[in-house]
Amino acid sequence: MPKGTIYMVPTTLGGESTTDITPEDVRTTVIQLRFFIVEDIRAARRYLRKLDRTFPIDDSTFLEINRKTESHELHGFIRHAVDGNDIGVLSDAGCPGIADPGAVVVGLAHARKIQVKPLVGASSILMTIMGSGFSGQEFSFHGYLPKERKDRIHAMKKFEADVYRNSVTHVFMDTPFRNMNVLEDLLNELSDTTMLCIASNLTIHDENIKTMSVKNWRDNAYDLAKKPTMFALGKIQ
Amino acid sequence: MPKGTIYMVPTTLGGESTTDITPEDVRTTVIQLRFFIVEDIRAARRYLRKLDRTFPIDDSTFLEINRKTESHELHGFIRHAVDGNDIGVLSDAGCPGIADPGAVVVGLAHARKIQVKPLVGASSILMTIMGSGFSGQEFSFHGYLPKERKDRIHAMKKFEADVYRNSVTHVFMDTPFRNMNVLEDLLNELSDTTMLCIASNLTIHDENIKTMSVKNWRDNAYDLAKKPTMFALGKIQ
Repeated sequence: MPKGTIYMVPTTLGGESTTDITPEDVRTTVIQLRFFIVEDIRAARRYLRKLDRTFPIDDSTFLEINRKTESHELHGFIRHAVDGNDIGVLSDAGCPGIADPGAVVVGLAHARKIQVKPLVGASSILMTIMGSGFSGQEFSFHGYLPKERKDRIHAMKKFEADVYRNSVTHVFMDTPFRNMNVLEDLLNELSDTTMLCIASNLTIHDENIKTMSVKNWRDNAYDLAKKPTMFALGKIQ
Repeated sequence: MPKGTIYMVPTTLGGESTTDITPEDVRTTVIQLRFFIVEDIRAARRYLRKLDRTFPIDDSTFLEINRKTESHELHGFIRHAVDGNDIGVLSDAGCPGIADPGAVVVGLAHARKIQVKPLVGASSILMTIMGSGFSGQEFSFHGYLPKERKDRIHAMKKFEADVYRNSVTHVFMDTPFRNMNVLEDLLNELSDTTMLCIASNLTIHDENIKTMSVKNWRDNAYDLAKKPTMFALGKIQ
């Protein structure tokens, strides 16, 4: 029996987002899967029901992976693919394997010569770069900023220096409840002329992407609390 | 009259790729556009015809941007958006504004307070990271490698050192006819145990994503000539 395939399934970007942005090709692939490795089981179920209201959740098998997941559980679950079943890997929002634990699954798959197939979907990182006006020739994504204010400011200043020195675009994020702290630090600590892009609620009805100088942001900042938000520093092309 | 919106439209990843991966939402938006700023006019027309066989190419206005495009032409064209028309920005393959001149348009749009809306589509960068098994918590995209062999090797070795030092994933590419030179350099110059991911023909029927050690690649290399290919170096999670 041939081995199954591990599908990396991008979900929507947050609860309010619809699956209208899901390619038909992805929908038909995903609704045939019955084995799932997921970051958050409730988010995964919600997404599957959005794709197909009649999706047989109860006939499907889920493994949740997080910091507590033991390595033998994951190894055990991957056996389903060795036995010929396809497995879907789902993040709680956006692309699996990017800022979540999904990459572990892919590493195991390659080691066992199981085919891995990333599906097409929304990436808040790529959408931020496309919408920023900053160079996409060379960019770095840094995931979540450090929690400690001092470390966070140090990171921001390092990114800013690299924009001026090498024209590299830097993208980063934080948990939504810390967005306003991040914004405050950016506006207090960076130079007037540094260009900052803020992309919030991507793919949702009140999506907002703006690129302005730090000086302009100081006069035009708006509430980002609880909104999924990406920040980028870069050079306008 | 309200200003138009600038849509950043991801196209397919190469000529053989179908638009089955295009979300319906993107298709319905794009086929209503009549103004386009494009990297390659023939690729743009081909894509529009793929989306809709009856697309009125002759009733549409195209501006091609490349190194020869003069700034006043672009400024002139952007006026269509100021006058209330929507404009689509298209790369020759993949996401506009990433490794192409599209970002210039977005910069001008932000300066004129024209809304920019990136649409969802295939990104070979994100698909490579999702399919690699490498950390997506922190990654850098470097676009095309330097043409000179000496500089190219220097760049590869710098990426490799950063994988070991900081666990950052590095993604890069080259023009398809140089793929085998890049592969040769990677296999000759990097350490046996360094993990290399090669993703070729993404979204096409013979898509191939493999992650192996450099040592394993030496015994299992295959022909990448003329195939759109992404390379990544990183740490298996």
